Amino acid sequence: MDIKEQIRELATAAKKAAALAARANTAQKNATLREIAKGIEANKTFLLAENAKDLQAARAKGLSEAMLDRLSLTEATLASIAAGVEEVAALPDPVGEVAALWRRPNGLLVGKMRIPLGVIGIIYEARPNVTVDAASLCLKAGNAVILRGGSEAAFSNLALGRVLGEALVRNGLPAALMQVVPTTDRNAVYELLQREDLIDLIIPRGGEELIRAVVSQSKIPVLKHYKGVCHIFVDEDCDIEMALNIVMNAKTQRPGVCNALETLLVHEKVAPLFLPLLWERMTAAGVEIRGCEFTRRLLEGAKIATEADWYEEYLALLLAVKVVANIEEAIVHIEKYGSLHTEAIITNSYERAQRFLNEVNSSTVLVNASTRFSDGFELGLGAEIGISTTKLHAFGPMGLEGLTTTKFIVYGNGQVRK
Amino acid sequence: MDIKEQIRELATAAKKAAALAARANTAQKNATLREIAKGIEANKTFLLAENAKDLQAARAKGLSEAMLDRLSLTEATLASIAAGVEEVAALPDPVGEVAALWRRPNGLLVGKMRIPLGVIGIIYEARPNVTVDAASLCLKAGNAVILRGGSEAAFSNLALGRVLGEALVRNGLPAALMQVVPTTDRNAVYELLQREDLIDLIIPRGGEELIRAVVSQSKIPVLKHYKGVCHIFVDEDCDIEMALNIVMNAKTQRPGVCNALETLLVHEKVAPLFLPLLWERMTAAGVEIRGCEFTRRLLEGAKIATEADWYEEYLALLLAVKVVANIEEAIVHIEKYGSLHTEAIITNSYERAQRFLNEVNSSTVLVNASTRFSDGFELGLGAEIGISTTKLHAFGPMGLEGLTTTKFIVYGNGQVRK
Repeated sequence: MDIKEQIRELATAAKKAAALAARANTAQKNATLREIAKGIEANKTFLLAENAKDLQAARAKGLSEAMLDRLSLTEATLASIAAGVEEVAALPDPVGEVAALWRRPNGLLVGKMRIPLGVIGIIYEARPNVTVDAASLCLKAGNAVILRGGSEAAFSNLALGRVLGEALVRNGLPAALMQVVPTTDRNAVYELLQREDLIDLIIPRGGEELIRAVVSQSKIPVLKHYKGVCHIFVDEDCDIEMALNIVMNAKTQRPGVCNALETLLVHEKVAPLFLPLLWERMTAAGVEIRGCEFTRRLLEGAKIATEADWYEEYLALLLAVKVVANIEEAIVHIEKYGSLHTEAIITNSYERAQRFLNEVNSSTVLVNASTRFSDGFELGLGAEIGISTTKLHAFGPMGLEGLTTTKFIVYGNGQVRK
Repeated sequence: MDIKEQIRELATAAKKAAALAARANTAQKNATLREIAKGIEANKTFLLAENAKDLQAARAKGLSEAMLDRLSLTEATLASIAAGVEEVAALPDPVGEVAALWRRPNGLLVGKMRIPLGVIGIIYEARPNVTVDAASLCLKAGNAVILRGGSEAAFSNLALGRVLGEALVRNGLPAALMQVVPTTDRNAVYELLQREDLIDLIIPRGGEELIRAVVSQSKIPVLKHYKGVCHIFVDEDCDIEMALNIVMNAKTQRPGVCNALETLLVHEKVAPLFLPLLWERMTAAGVEIRGCEFTRRLLEGAKIATEADWYEEYLALLLAVKVVANIEEAIVHIEKYGSLHTEAIITNSYERAQRFLNEVNSSTVLVNASTRFSDGFELGLGAEIGISTTKLHAFGPMGLEGLTTTKFIVYGNGQVRK
C-alpha cells in the first residue's frame, strides 16, 4: 500500500472514530484517561526499553544533548506524563456546554452548544511526552487525534500509541481515536496535510522551521505561532523594584521559551535611574544587553542594537533595550516589530495601564506582571495545547476550548419563516 | 505601477487604517455609519447614473435577467441599503467587551477582551448592495475592509466607495478603512489572496464556483460554505400539520437560498399518512419530488432519486425524499450526505428532540422549526456577514462577533513566575 493510501485509510478511520468520540460522555472519557495514566505506569519497562532503542539510534546519529534530553524517557518523566493525564481527566468537559439561550420575538429559543472539532493532526518534534499530552487533551474535547512526532522518537511513540489504544478499547472506544502514524516516511506529513476532507485542524508543535514547513504545505487550517518577540514597557511612573523583578523574571527564568522577554522599552524619564540598576542584575545573571544610542549613553558596556535586533527572538541570555519618549512611542514600536504574542507594561498610572491594555492588540497583554504568565496553565485554562498568534479561532494560549467549536441549537414549536 | 504593487499598497494602507479603526470609539463609528446612510440618500442621482453605466454594459454583454436584477440599483434599493446601515449603527459594539474576569491563586486578574480582526477582504459577485452592507459590518467591528465585487458592477462599486470614503473622512477616519479595489484586472483577486502579511480574513460571498476559486488561491484564512444540503427529519411521533407547514416553508418560501430544504427524511411509521398529504401540497406549489423506493410506493408520481440526488443542493423546486426506519438511520444519512449547514427534526418526543440536537453536529440544528431560520438576523445576531460550514473560528451564521477575536488581558501587581 502506498503512503497516500495508507494516510487516507488512517484519516478515514479517525473521522469515523471522531463521530463516536463526539458522543462519548464525560465519565467514559475520564475513565479512559485514567486508564491511560495507569497504563503508562504499568508498561514502564516496555516503554523505557522502546525509548532506549530511539536513544541508541539518536546517539549513533550524533544528536545534540538538548535533543537527547527531550527524547529521553525516565521513570520520573513517565510518572509526570501519567500525572498530566490525570490532570486532564480532572478538568471540566467543554463539550455540550450551552452558555446561554435567548428567546426570539417569534418564540424560538436559540443557543450555542459547544461541540468537538472532529479530527486533529499534531505534527511535532522528537518529544514523546507530547504524544500523550496532546492525545489526552484531544480526547477530553471529544476529538480524534493523529499523532506524527519526529522520526527519532518512532519506537517511543509507537509504544505509547499501543498503551493509548489499549486504554481506549478497554473503555469501549475505538483505538482509531488516537493514532500514531506508523511510518517514518517523510511523505506521510505531506499526505496528512492534504486531507482537508478528513482532518479539521493541524497543530504543529516545535520550532519556527517546522511550523513554516507545515503551513506552506497544508490545505487544512493550521493553528500556529512563528515566534514570540515579547516586550515589556517600563513606564516613567512605576515601582522600580517591581519593574526590576518582573524584567529579570521575564528574561531569565526560562530564556528559551516563546513568552520570555526579548525587547525592553524604557521611558526616558526613568531610564537614568532604572537602567544602571538593571544592568547590574542582568550582567550578574549573564545576560548581554544590546541597546539603542540612549541606552548606551547610560550603560557603557552595552553593545549597539541594530535594526535586526528589534525583530529578533533571541531565546537566549540576550536583551534588546530601547529608550522611548512616551507610551505612544512604545506602542508604535510594538506594532512595528512585535509578533502579536505577549506584551506587558509596568506602571503606577491608571490611565496608561488602561491605555496599554486597550491599544496593544497582542494575544496576551499584561499590567505589572511577567510575560512568562502567557501560558494556558498560568492563565487558568487548565491546560495548553499551543499558543496561536493567528487571530482566527483562537488567539493566544489555547486550552480545551480551542479544541472545540459551537453550533447553534434552536428549540421551536412550529415556527416558519414569513 | 503593476497590479501586484498596486494591491500591496492598497492592503498596506488598509492595515495602517485598521490600527486606527481598532481604537475608534463606538460614537465615532456610529456617526460614520449614519453619515454613510445619509450620503447614499444625498448621492442618489450620482449613484443611479453610475449604476446605469454598469447596467448598459451588462445588457450589451447579454447578462441574464437574474444577474441584471441583482446588479440593478433603484431609489427603493438605495433606501433599503441606507436603512440597513442605520440598523448596523444601532447594533451593540462588540469591541472591548470583556465577558468575565477570573482571579488566579497568585492574585492575577485574567480576562478575554474582544478586539477587531484587522483587515478583511470581501470577494463577491456583481451585487452593489454587498459593498455597503459588508463595509458597514466591518467598520462596526473595528476592521478595515477591502471590497472586490464582480467587474460588471465596477462603476456602481466605485461610486459607492466614494460615498463611503467621504463619510469616513468627515468623521476623522481614514478613507483607507473602506477601499473598493479600483481595477477590474482579474489578477487583483489573486494578488489580494497572497497578502497574508496584510490581510487577516477573506470572506467570499457568492456561488460555489466563486468560493472554490478563492479557497484554492488563498494563503489567507477563508470563511466559507460551499453548499447547504439541508435536511428535515419527520419523526414517527409528530404534529402532522406542523410538519407539513414547516416542510413546505423550508422548501418553497425561498428555494434559491442555502438554508432551504433539499432532502426530507420521513420515519416509515408516519410516511404512509404524511407523504400523500405532502405530495398534494408540494405538487400544488410546483415542486418535483424525487424519492427512494419506499417513497415511490406511496407516491406514484414521484421520480426515482439516484445516489447523486442525496448530495444535491437543488436551489430549485425539487425535493429529495427518503423513508427511514428510525432516527438512527436519519442521523447516519445526514452525516454521510450532509454539508454541515442546517438540519431540523419535527417531533413530539422529548428524548428524540434532545438526541437530534446533541448528536447532529451541523452548524444549526433545529427542533420543530423551519431550516430557513438558519440566518444571522433570525437567530438574533443582529446582522449576518456570511455563513460558515468550516468549524474553525465561526461555525454557522456569522454576525459582528465573527468579525472579531479576543485577546487575554491580565491585571497584576508585581507577579513573577516561580
